[in-house]
Amino acid sequence: MSKLLILHADILVPHEPSRVLRDAAIAIENKKIVALGETPPDFHADEIIDARHHVALPGFFNAHAHAAMTLLRGSAEDLPLDRWFNEGIWRTESALTEEDVYWGTALAACEMLRGGTVAFADHYFWMTQVARVVQESGMKALLAWCVFGSDFASEMGPTTLELTGDFVAEFQNSAGGRIKTMLGPHSPYISTEAALRRAANLARKLGVGCHIHVSESPAQVENAYKQFGKSPVAYLDDLGVFENPSIAAHAIYLDDADIEILRARNVTVAACPKTHLKLAMKTTRLVDLLRAGVKVALGTDGAASNNDLNMLEVARLAALLQKHDTGDATVLPSAQTLNLASRHGALALGFVNSGLMQVGADADLILLDTDKPHFAPCHDLAANVLYAARAGDVDYVIVDGKPLVRKGALTTLDEEKIMREANARGARMVRSALTQTQTYRA
Amino acid sequence: MSKLLILHADILVPHEPSRVLRDAAIAIENKKIVALGETPPDFHADEIIDARHHVALPGFFNAHAHAAMTLLRGSAEDLPLDRWFNEGIWRTESALTEEDVYWGTALAACEMLRGGTVAFADHYFWMTQVARVVQESGMKALLAWCVFGSDFASEMGPTTLELTGDFVAEFQNSAGGRIKTMLGPHSPYISTEAALRRAANLARKLGVGCHIHVSESPAQVENAYKQFGKSPVAYLDDLGVFENPSIAAHAIYLDDADIEILRARNVTVAACPKTHLKLAMKTTRLVDLLRAGVKVALGTDGAASNNDLNMLEVARLAALLQKHDTGDATVLPSAQTLNLASRHGALALGFVNSGLMQVGADADLILLDTDKPHFAPCHDLAANVLYAARAGDVDYVIVDGKPLVRKGALTTLDEEKIMREANARGARMVRSALTQTQTYRA
Repeated sequence: MSKLLILHADILVPHEPSRVLRDAAIAIENKKIVALGETPPDFHADEIIDARHHVALPGFFNAHAHAAMTLLRGSAEDLPLDRWFNEGIWRTESALTEEDVYWGTALAACEMLRGGTVAFADHYFWMTQVARVVQESGMKALLAWCVFGSDFASEMGPTTLELTGDFVAEFQNSAGGRIKTMLGPHSPYISTEAALRRAANLARKLGVGCHIHVSESPAQVENAYKQFGKSPVAYLDDLGVFENPSIAAHAIYLDDADIEILRARNVTVAACPKTHLKLAMKTTRLVDLLRAGVKVALGTDGAASNNDLNMLEVARLAALLQKHDTGDATVLPSAQTLNLASRHGALALGFVNSGLMQVGADADLILLDTDKPHFAPCHDLAANVLYAARAGDVDYVIVDGKPLVRKGALTTLDEEKIMREANARGARMVRSALTQTQTYRA
Repeated sequence: MSKLLILHADILVPHEPSRVLRDAAIAIENKKIVALGETPPDFHADEIIDARHHVALPGFFNAHAHAAMTLLRGSAEDLPLDRWFNEGIWRTESALTEEDVYWGTALAACEMLRGGTVAFADHYFWMTQVARVVQESGMKALLAWCVFGSDFASEMGPTTLELTGDFVAEFQNSAGGRIKTMLGPHSPYISTEAALRRAANLARKLGVGCHIHVSESPAQVENAYKQFGKSPVAYLDDLGVFENPSIAAHAIYLDDADIEILRARNVTVAACPKTHLKLAMKTTRLVDLLRAGVKVALGTDGAASNNDLNMLEVARLAALLQKHDTGDATVLPSAQTLNLASRHGALALGFVNSGLMQVGADADLILLDTDKPHFAPCHDLAANVLYAARAGDVDYVIVDGKPLVRKGALTTLDEEKIMREANARGARMVRSALTQTQTYRA
């Protein structure tokens, strides 16, 4: 395995907020960080990165994404959640093909890597295509093939629960361990009770969790009480969906009993504050969840609502919005927030040895160029990264010890070709939706 | 005068939301846009910019800044407003020198220009130093020398109202019309009644408005009622502070009568959503103000609270936060929000012919590189700019027809030297505050 040496970096350790290493080295061998601080003697690196004027920190783990939805970026603007979904996205997505998922995800991978994201938890269709992108790009991912339940099976092609289970069996720990899997039942409000129960049983058999949308609106909670006599969280728990560590996306409208279930079941709540703001959904109560001992991570959601896949911005918005909503400027200090985006995300995605800046951890880290006016002066490195840095400052992204971004350029993906394909496919999908709309109105 | 020709740009016209020009030309002569769409015949340009894969839009006008506070970026983190001010900023600012203001403002100019800001409304000390930076950088600015009132005159050196009036008289319309001025009484809660009355009289005499902080916290409003029997806005209005078109920064806690005064007096409210979020202040009710017919613009505030000077992010946060607070995802569509950051800001700063993408307008415009994964596909150009673009995508910034940023590099300022000076001065100020704190505690 190749050996990589990073020299003269300022190192941020979000999981130890008071620790900053200045002008330090990071030695990487066999996909792991083997030294931090001093260069080990007799370390003969294959590649040396001069990181003067750079800050090193763990890469970002995006805990809730629909990567291929980059193709729909900006296609349904300034709409409330229900109209965004029913009049915008749903109609356009009906033109989605398997190849579209490959190219849309490839575009997302370009964007995520350039912004310092090393891994993503994807929840979408034709997950074998997403796996192809993960294999080719060198990123890590937790992949959950979204399934609606039998009532909706025809809408997005021949996806069945069994197919998504086969995907789990085949791809779990593939790509040299870079791919993890879960099942992906859509939500308690779209998936049927029978489908959710079958998903829970299959997840138990396969030994994986479920990645699922939970309690995004007051209407969803009201309807769950009407239909099932309990909250969406209690309903999913009773069906056995949370038996293995799972990801509950959004989880905005929770009561105390819900919070206790999520804590006891070891569920990670993936908050997506930019989507929450843009669709006026209110937002996940991160501070309350953290105080209650619930696991919390951060996600971008899809670019159709976000409208980008910028984890640095998501982390910033998470902290800003919690300060705003709680009225308390002291909550979510910078290092803790960055740690949510890295270490907490790594755990949620099942990469238990990553998201850490320490010897022995997976070498999944990023270098940001700090030689910029918006980074000067540097009184507080974590605050400068969280509140002033930009995704475009990311100069290097290293996953399993391999640079996937080097001097701001992608090393594994053909960005120009991907953008060309994605542009054409996105245009085709939106045209198709417009035609549909016209037919419908006529 | 030199002639500039921009070719093959996609042009966003925020003040006409449905209008987008594709692959269009912009011809600039004598500081003005002289053609838009087609290249005029016989236009012999001195410089031609090939803007393929670029979007052109009016530059940003930052309606409330304390530019030199870049020196304090990250120096007082995760504190509530009162402690941020009293324990953090105030103490560090007491070490501020006149030369510091020059270098801190120069750093701010580098950052603002690189992010597409063409003009800023500054409210700080030693305004002659800020004027130097404006002269040298080629930016436009509305400068208000902050004065506390006689009780506080000694804190920041020998600033008197008369001095700030002399500054107005000397600098109004200087630098080829690029500098406008106002008086800068600090606020109704720090400035005394006598000082505010004197400022209002002087403003009337000089024919300028006042740039002042208003109603940032419930305590400020409560205290105004206790001390003066009326709201801060009514108090300032009764003293004559709003007689000429003025800027009220923040203006978060307003009642209906306040809103009517601001409308009737033609006051522009400058909202600073990133500061509001970070210091948990709640935020300016932009949607309500716009509906009531109050003029509204957007500002960064100082980098000590923001923590950067990124107007694109401020505009994005303004829209996101209004959607969140009102619970209505349809408010502040993308083009309208960008128009707040450009045209509305231009009017607030007194550049009545700017912030427009039309023939005859001042050539104050920017070009963003759209050949990036986060900009693909482009179903909605305004949404891509507001929600996905980054300050670092700004490739050209043109003010009065002159490129101040060309291919991402500053043309008028020595960035390296400025960053070196700013770093040293920021470090000195924070060290001085620490020493003070230790003495105080000992």
